[in-house]
Amino acid sequence: MNTDHDDRANLEPCVVGVDYGTLSGRAVVVRVRDGAELGTAEHPYAHAVLDRELPDGTGLPPDWALQVPADYIDVLRIAVPEALTRAGVRPEQVIGIGTDFTACTVLPVLADGIPLCEVPGLAGRPHAYVKLWRHHAAQAQADRITALAAERKEPWLARYGGKISSEWEFAKALQLLEEDPELYALTDRWLEAADWIVWRLCGTYVRNACTAGYKGQFQDGAYPSREYLAALNPGFADFVTAKLEHPIGQLGDLAGRLTAEAAAWTGLPEGIAVCVGNVDAHVTAPAATAVEPGRMVAIMGTSTCHVMSSDQWAEVPGMCGVVKGGILPGLWGYEAGQSGVGDIFGWFVRTGFPASYAEEAAALGRDAHEHLTALAAGQRVGEHGLIALDWQSGNRSVLVDHDLSGVVVGLTLSTRPEDVYRALLEATAFGTRTIIEAFEAAGVPVEELIVAGGLTKNALLMQIYADVTRKPLGVIDSAQGPALGAAMHAAVAAGAYPDIRAAARTMGKARPAVYLPDPERAAAYDRLYAEYRLLHDYFGRGANEVMHRLRRLRVEVSA
Amino acid sequence: MNTDHDDRANLEPCVVGVDYGTLSGRAVVVRVRDGAELGTAEHPYAHAVLDRELPDGTGLPPDWALQVPADYIDVLRIAVPEALTRAGVRPEQVIGIGTDFTACTVLPVLADGIPLCEVPGLAGRPHAYVKLWRHHAAQAQADRITALAAERKEPWLARYGGKISSEWEFAKALQLLEEDPELYALTDRWLEAADWIVWRLCGTYVRNACTAGYKGQFQDGAYPSREYLAALNPGFADFVTAKLEHPIGQLGDLAGRLTAEAAAWTGLPEGIAVCVGNVDAHVTAPAATAVEPGRMVAIMGTSTCHVMSSDQWAEVPGMCGVVKGGILPGLWGYEAGQSGVGDIFGWFVRTGFPASYAEEAAALGRDAHEHLTALAAGQRVGEHGLIALDWQSGNRSVLVDHDLSGVVVGLTLSTRPEDVYRALLEATAFGTRTIIEAFEAAGVPVEELIVAGGLTKNALLMQIYADVTRKPLGVIDSAQGPALGAAMHAAVAAGAYPDIRAAARTMGKARPAVYLPDPERAAAYDRLYAEYRLLHDYFGRGANEVMHRLRRLRVEVSA
Repeated sequence: MNTDHDDRANLEPCVVGVDYGTLSGRAVVVRVRDGAELGTAEHPYAHAVLDRELPDGTGLPPDWALQVPADYIDVLRIAVPEALTRAGVRPEQVIGIGTDFTACTVLPVLADGIPLCEVPGLAGRPHAYVKLWRHHAAQAQADRITALAAERKEPWLARYGGKISSEWEFAKALQLLEEDPELYALTDRWLEAADWIVWRLCGTYVRNACTAGYKGQFQDGAYPSREYLAALNPGFADFVTAKLEHPIGQLGDLAGRLTAEAAAWTGLPEGIAVCVGNVDAHVTAPAATAVEPGRMVAIMGTSTCHVMSSDQWAEVPGMCGVVKGGILPGLWGYEAGQSGVGDIFGWFVRTGFPASYAEEAAALGRDAHEHLTALAAGQRVGEHGLIALDWQSGNRSVLVDHDLSGVVVGLTLSTRPEDVYRALLEATAFGTRTIIEAFEAAGVPVEELIVAGGLTKNALLMQIYADVTRKPLGVIDSAQGPALGAAMHAAVAAGAYPDIRAAARTMGKARPAVYLPDPERAAAYDRLYAEYRLLHDYFGRGANEVMHRLRRLRVEVSA
Repeated sequence: MNTDHDDRANLEPCVVGVDYGTLSGRAVVVRVRDGAELGTAEHPYAHAVLDRELPDGTGLPPDWALQVPADYIDVLRIAVPEALTRAGVRPEQVIGIGTDFTACTVLPVLADGIPLCEVPGLAGRPHAYVKLWRHHAAQAQADRITALAAERKEPWLARYGGKISSEWEFAKALQLLEEDPELYALTDRWLEAADWIVWRLCGTYVRNACTAGYKGQFQDGAYPSREYLAALNPGFADFVTAKLEHPIGQLGDLAGRLTAEAAAWTGLPEGIAVCVGNVDAHVTAPAATAVEPGRMVAIMGTSTCHVMSSDQWAEVPGMCGVVKGGILPGLWGYEAGQSGVGDIFGWFVRTGFPASYAEEAAALGRDAHEHLTALAAGQRVGEHGLIALDWQSGNRSVLVDHDLSGVVVGLTLSTRPEDVYRALLEATAFGTRTIIEAFEAAGVPVEELIVAGGLTKNALLMQIYADVTRKPLGVIDSAQGPALGAAMHAAVAAGAYPDIRAAARTMGKARPAVYLPDPERAAAYDRLYAEYRLLHDYFGRGANEVMHRLRRLRVEVSA
């Protein structure tokens, strides 16, 4: 990363972006003038994810996923100075720092921001820790939250495609109240890790507009009402006013100035700009230059997150959420997602890659994915005779049902591993097309798809997405999309650019229309997509509830 | 095989059974007194299956499968003497020889029985050869045969579950007429290989009741009418009278006496009894002691054939056929089948057995099937969360649709190879239960299941079949079921037993009720079976023709 600068360049203003992922944090040093990424460093969280036990050995039930907030501070201490060193950038060149985080990742803190798990005597209490986005043990609470909202016709429910996730702020807080009321009472603030880390950097708690809207059900200036909360649980009536409500900062706003303590951690100058918190997927949109309506960014990794801004407001059935200013200030930010994408390909390689294939791949110097992709790449559309549903990890959008499961139809005695692999690649593309069509049917046009994330390296997959969606497919031109986006927001907060749109024009990086739909393949895919939708609706919309029944039977006999 | 006899035993009367399979013939020498199998030998056909080219290099179109009749004679020359030697039996002890054959395996011959492919000048003509049962190139003819019969309401159509197979005598003959009318004109007789080999043994052509009924549409003493045949193709009007019709011999009847020529081939005494021809699956029924109504024999190998006799006549939808005397003289013989069983498990092991599993299996000294079976054996019913349709090779009964394909529903990121493997084992059991229920719904009770064939060695599979069908499961006690059955029929033809029932009582071998249904597992399987039937009818009975469309697309793009 240290090839593109000289002494003169190194004296130019820079910003630091820090991307807090699920298992590690990455820091990147970016030149303000042109977005050049001068140096990066990564630091894994010492405690990774606590999903079996706490650090003291206290066991955790299934579906729990916690983190230790001190691990986030270590990223500031270690990765930031390392990235600076690698960049060959002097601390005084850095004019701002921005962050992004997984979400909804939330924690209970005291009034001064101290996490409950750091309060003496509370380290053995599971509910005192950070609940990671993928903590799924609040499903019962989420079900009640959705059902009651539907019953009471709460206006905000439609903003979330009709369903509130167990991953979000209210479900996780209600679980805290109901399972450890003593800790709930001790909680002064229930806040996103995205905002907590900013608080630690600048000494000021600013609630970011993105998570407040997508994860905190903050819509049109209000949270769910006291009456609604009381009906969920009388003890929950004051939750918003007592623990959640807080002034909102827009994305790219200045949250405060770097404290002496944080300057000492990072090696950065005290007093530089600290940007309002943000979310990994959403911050990637401007990094991928998607600052105009109609440019959908798909961040494709183990799962896919779709984010897009629009000047039009609509209730898109099955979307994760629509939030004013949720991605770009002033525009409606839409979010949707596929809960399994790369995870499905990984599962197939783990379980369906025969020894003979492994040998051949090794001889050719390919990994399993490369080998299956190479074998599948020459096929004509429809040649494998298969159609699959991409629900091995459930369906986030547009069905919002994590109890669905995967299907493969069309297997014959001549079906080969590369055939199933290709059918799975295609199934995820059909899933994305389903989401795009939901937006378009609701009156929110999608003009272009820009892809970010680890799966961009699979050219066959990218071409399939272009062919299936009939959209020109751009690709982000950075391996550090979220961290770059966080750095761009820092540049805005520091005043180097008037707004994120201006920053995106010079610092954002995407190669537009790298993959164009081929008309013939697109036409063949239309036929396969029709089959996908038929099965999608049959298995996903109640015609045959077999997946739910199989799951119940499984749980029942495994008990 | 040579352990159970002494000099005295060796002087006792014996019979020889010869089983003509798809790739080889097996001879077994059996003691008449008790059915002891004293010696066996196998001889592979020199030309195996001609499915790409004739011996002279003439290419064959897709779906063709031919054989060379001289290869059948070699089995008599080589395997029979070898089995005698191994048995330590003197030729003069042998009182009869019986045969069984794959079916419908048919050939065109001259009036003296010489196959057309042996007529000088015709060796380069594909239609001059034996068409093996799995020759599937007459599908267009079969479709017309069924459609016209349905249109004309031909009474015999219901005897075949409503559909005439492309594998049978009329479809293959019509293909001969329409594709090589000159050879059709040269054909004096169109006959089953099962009867041709008997003709070669005793010099007399006797048409056996089994193939005449199941494969030749001979019902209630008549073949399809001249009018019907003329409507199919005017040139086909005389097919029955000119080339097919011939006196019928009942199973176990004496066809004739061994000729000097055949005695020289086999080393057996000239003049011993030669039994009427028979079919591999059907001849296995008495070998497995299934000589009473309600005892269904399932011959489970790459595919499964179900045969059962009954004193009740019924039209069972989707069965392969019902023939008076088709299995046991005097009873209605029912046949049904599953076109893929062991083939599906084999396909899964070829394509879905990862390298890590292969290593573990090798370390434990297990083959892939043993390893997956061992891993799956401990599961509770429903624990894998999957349901599969066993149609990777199409569906013979009860849907009679070879363009259907396999399905797996319920896949998650935690699904393992042994889960899918077990789901496939179960799917084939559900397929058998579907067949049993079709019989019972039509008023033909199935009391007991007796299993023969290579898959009997998988105890988990057997237990699953008992649990799924809720039937006590017996197992044949011979590795040579068809050859033993052929030998038993020879004993009847030689007069050693008054009829095949009497022979079965002393020579037949089955261990009854080896596997009993477990009530708890059976109840859990009832739930999974309900899911299977729901998907079976959805994909198989026209609600969603996706499998047909996928297949058409596949053919289209592969063209």
